[in-house]
Amino acid sequence: MTRGLNFSAGPSTLPEPALRQAQAELLDWRGTGASVAELSHRGAPFMALAAEIEADLRRLLDVPESHAVLFMQGGATLQQVLVPLNFAAPGQAAGYLVTGHWSKVAMKQARPYVDVREIASSEPGGFHGVPPRETWQVPADAAYVHVTGNETIHGVELPDVPDAGDIPVVMDVSSNIASRPMDFSRVGMAYAGAQKNLGPSGATVVIVHRDLLERAGQPRGDILVLKSHAAQGSMLNTPATFNWYLLGLCVRWMLDEGGTPEFARRNARKAALLYGAIDGSGGFYRNDVDAGVRSRMNVPFVLHDPGLDAAFLAESEALHMIGLKGHKAVGGMRASLYNAMPESGVQALVDFMRDFQARHG
Amino acid sequence: MTRGLNFSAGPSTLPEPALRQAQAELLDWRGTGASVAELSHRGAPFMALAAEIEADLRRLLDVPESHAVLFMQGGATLQQVLVPLNFAAPGQAAGYLVTGHWSKVAMKQARPYVDVREIASSEPGGFHGVPPRETWQVPADAAYVHVTGNETIHGVELPDVPDAGDIPVVMDVSSNIASRPMDFSRVGMAYAGAQKNLGPSGATVVIVHRDLLERAGQPRGDILVLKSHAAQGSMLNTPATFNWYLLGLCVRWMLDEGGTPEFARRNARKAALLYGAIDGSGGFYRNDVDAGVRSRMNVPFVLHDPGLDAAFLAESEALHMIGLKGHKAVGGMRASLYNAMPESGVQALVDFMRDFQARHG
Repeated sequence: MTRGLNFSAGPSTLPEPALRQAQAELLDWRGTGASVAELSHRGAPFMALAAEIEADLRRLLDVPESHAVLFMQGGATLQQVLVPLNFAAPGQAAGYLVTGHWSKVAMKQARPYVDVREIASSEPGGFHGVPPRETWQVPADAAYVHVTGNETIHGVELPDVPDAGDIPVVMDVSSNIASRPMDFSRVGMAYAGAQKNLGPSGATVVIVHRDLLERAGQPRGDILVLKSHAAQGSMLNTPATFNWYLLGLCVRWMLDEGGTPEFARRNARKAALLYGAIDGSGGFYRNDVDAGVRSRMNVPFVLHDPGLDAAFLAESEALHMIGLKGHKAVGGMRASLYNAMPESGVQALVDFMRDFQARHG
Repeated sequence: MTRGLNFSAGPSTLPEPALRQAQAELLDWRGTGASVAELSHRGAPFMALAAEIEADLRRLLDVPESHAVLFMQGGATLQQVLVPLNFAAPGQAAGYLVTGHWSKVAMKQARPYVDVREIASSEPGGFHGVPPRETWQVPADAAYVHVTGNETIHGVELPDVPDAGDIPVVMDVSSNIASRPMDFSRVGMAYAGAQKNLGPSGATVVIVHRDLLERAGQPRGDILVLKSHAAQGSMLNTPATFNWYLLGLCVRWMLDEGGTPEFARRNARKAALLYGAIDGSGGFYRNDVDAGVRSRMNVPFVLHDPGLDAAFLAESEALHMIGLKGHKAVGGMRASLYNAMPESGVQALVDFMRDFQARHG
């Protein structure tokens, strides 16, 4: 078996030790005589696992006690509906910072519920940067300010949690959670589809200040009430148990490797390697994102001649490199460098890119 | 390794051949060099798999072309919110048949959106039967009639899809889908959390008449619009890929075993065996559900002396029988006899029950 080098944007590469453990115990987990996927979520073995995983994730991310941690289904997109439903009165203003495709999706999902106000946008400049904080027009009565921590398609990453004064910041951290230390005490809510840095798709992590859970929000079924999920330990209904478990194995691996400080160092080196190769190619490869906000997780780049795209993809695939095709919204290529992508993988990509340029430049 | 006999109500026992295949290919699926959990849902390999699974499920369940098949997240409970949001105008009447715990959950989730009308209820009789069709008070202007095909806690199963005239029937089939042939041409929508007969938790299957998808419904984010999920081939956002895949392996196994006609025969035999043992115990074990609507999937029973419950559970667990503790709402025991539970497993349970009675009777 040859494990490929998987640069997919999500679902994405998972740590091999986590997959090997899942494989070894897939039919008999912890001596229960059953797969973890076959056990009742309300039985003692799974309840113990759920508590372990929450403790591990809190440790990995340094989540303060002021915040609840939820394990849900539905992906980040469902959270983009739950945010206005839970935190805003019907029609209340809510501020949205626009830095790429996913910011716009968040606005679209929220529009039926709140008065969506674009507080600033980098769209006129082609999503190459982040509007400076001093230009943001935050409505004084906004229920919250929503920002996208990392734009997976446009390759733009916020350097930290922005300050919105007394207004809670809600942050989509799907694609950069756990990639570096983050100060979660400064977010009202952070949410993440797990399928990038945390584990498999079908698991969603929510970190939410308990005060926000007390807001009345809007009329809605109980399954859409974040406070109810928190009160039930994320077991308001049957959770996605196997995904939860596999996420737990990935979290444990990240702790074993040294936690977010270590991944911050690794990810900085990996990103420097790839952006260096792009910038040093004399224009053969190009990435136009502003230097200070280039994503360390998702590196979109174009070839100077799009006619070479097919050859680039075919040759990289022959070298067992997976998932380099760029998103259709921006074209070209994209390499996702999540925590489970080793530095050696990025080195192999860079070596291939130089070789490809030498032959096609 | 000893595989236990898993009588859990859900998540529940999965077919061993499906688990073994998942185990074998967990790190390299179909020669891709990656786990299926690591691949982009929009890449050719996973898209092909998704199409195969839909075709297999349509064949297994004999779903007519008039109906779309969706693979979603969030469980049956999320669907209980999507039903009124998608099919009813705000505050419109909707009929609910009450046959147990899960019927009431469905009503609770819908209440913020529609005028919930109980059309009939077996609650006064302790949920031991199904109110006769001729007693149902269906409002003429109801957007739909909701029924629970099988009550997992109270052990009550509808014998078939009820007739509500021109009003579409919406049916929760979480715990009896694929257990016997069902006429899906007669349902407006059927939905099922997969974690009973279809696969792992974290996957939800929806079978919905395409005409119903055209209803305006209520203002809502796009992620709550069933028509959008259908238009995007269940990839409106990142789906739970591994759960979808594992569900596919379970569906393939059911087809290989002979499909729903064969499972109908097996499930009838299994249920007859267990109910026979209960009814033949001279009152040592008891199930009070009306004979014609006893669930073939979930068999709740009580011991004549609740003081024996702890011994029953301890002894059965020592024999590697898992998940026999009844739901806290009804107490006693519950044995779930889903498709993946072999007849030999039910025989082993019945043998144990007779032995237990002989020693404690």
